Amino acid sequence: MEKTLNISMWQKRLEDFAKERDWDQFHNPKNLAMALSVESSELVEIFQWLSSEQSENLDEKSLENTTHEMADILLYLIRLSSKLNIDLEDALEKKFEINKSKYPVELARGTAKKYSELKSE
Amino acid sequence: MEKTLNISMWQKRLEDFAKERDWDQFHNPKNLAMALSVESSELVEIFQWLSSEQSENLDEKSLENTTHEMADILLYLIRLSSKLNIDLEDALEKKFEINKSKYPVELARGTAKKYSELKSE
Amino acid sequence: MEKTLNISMWQKRLEDFAKERDWDQFHNPKNLAMALSVESSELVEIFQWLSSEQSENLDEKSLENTTHEMADILLYLIRLSSKLNIDLEDALEKKFEINKSKYPVELARGTAKKYSELKSE
Amino acid sequence: MEKTLNISMWQKRLEDFAKERDWDQFHNPKNLAMALSVESSELVEIFQWLSSEQSENLDEKSLENTTHEMADILLYLIRLSSKLNIDLEDALEKKFEINKSKYPVELARGTAKKYSELKSE
Repeated sequence: MEKTLNISMWQKRLEDFAKERDWDQFHNPKNLAMALSVESSELVEIFQWLSSEQSENLDEKSLENTTHEMADILLYLIRLSSKLNIDLEDALEKKFEINKSKYPVELARGTAKKYSELKSE
Repeated sequence: MEKTLNISMWQKRLEDFAKERDWDQFHNPKNLAMALSVESSELVEIFQWLSSEQSENLDEKSLENTTHEMADILLYLIRLSSKLNIDLEDALEKKFEINKSKYPVELARGTAKKYSELKSE
Repeated sequence: MEKTLNISMWQKRLEDFAKERDWDQFHNPKNLAMALSVESSELVEIFQWLSSEQSENLDEKSLENTTHEMADILLYLIRLSSKLNIDLEDALEKKFEINKSKYPVELARGTAKKYSELKSE
Repeated sequence: MEKTLNISMWQKRLEDFAKERDWDQFHNPKNLAMALSVESSELVEIFQWLSSEQSENLDEKSLENTTHEMADILLYLIRLSSKLNIDLEDALEKKFEINKSKYPVELARGTAKKYSELKSE
């Protein structure tokens, strides 16, 4: 079954959530970017002492925490897109094209080098 | 017009992108969480020396950079959801309910206090 | 040979550095905290695709980059201590005591659990 | 009075702290970099909803939290320097020279532009 996310609905829900709490005063893009990065570090915290292998086999509690942190990141991302009037689908399309040209298959295969170092080989 | 994001399609695109480059060896959840947090700091970097007011009135170049960084965050989020078999829509629904109960309107109105400090008033 | 760091001298150097560039207008604690976290993500970026083992055997270039990023973090930390009039040595002493009591040897040995979960066993 | 930090002593204290808890197995550079970035986001969290002005006038509780988070960052930085055999004083000297040449007074005065954009004017 195809999974889709109704971005417009979530933008509206988060606008209402903030309005009801009079939080627009705090939700400028600078602060939202900070909050998003704090949530992404809470995601990192779950994994910081795990080995790579352990991170592929999370216990139930860690998987639930991971799911919650990912949701918080996505909520702030949608909120920020709403504030800045950014079309997320369009943003994905454009950035995905950029990433494909930054990391051409023939140069990037099997290496984790940054694109700026791929060129110089 | 309603904006929706086809998560299944993007999961598939990113799986193919990684497979073609033989990057699955790098894409364990631990590393993906790190990469996501690095992208979110690149977002923060755009705003670090701006005032709150300036962050609401980005010039064209900064807005484009912001759009790119948000896309990278979302790409890693979708990739991680694919690796951990997490349903993002469902995750949003559950976390949004939690956030509503952590921040009841009557207690949270007009304050940026953390939920753990709201209770103690 | 004992290594010491002259904090007062570095605080002064960084004050002069900012003053000469008229950067005090940007260096409020909020912005400095953001900048410090951006630098620490640049540190993380070096390690994001490395295995734990590889991170213990950095090549010369990666070790140099690591050294530079660690220096930037420390420079912002000293700058922030100067702005907030925080005594770093005293801060270390106090936090080290807290960490020792949060992680008693008998409970913490061999486990990476967070202190809040150690108690509940 | 001149403030100095005895780095060698703190490196030794942290080595003993880890050894007593059998934590060397977790303390590879990759994991330490992650932990350091998580602490720096805990620092950011204190400031995320504050205005710049408020961040210059922290209440007692926030200042104490800030001090604790800065200490944790510094503890991980010292721990990492010990693991990688990095001389922090020397690292500061070298990076400070680099920063001075990246941001020459005449070009950087009064602007928060990144060095890579200063050149192009």
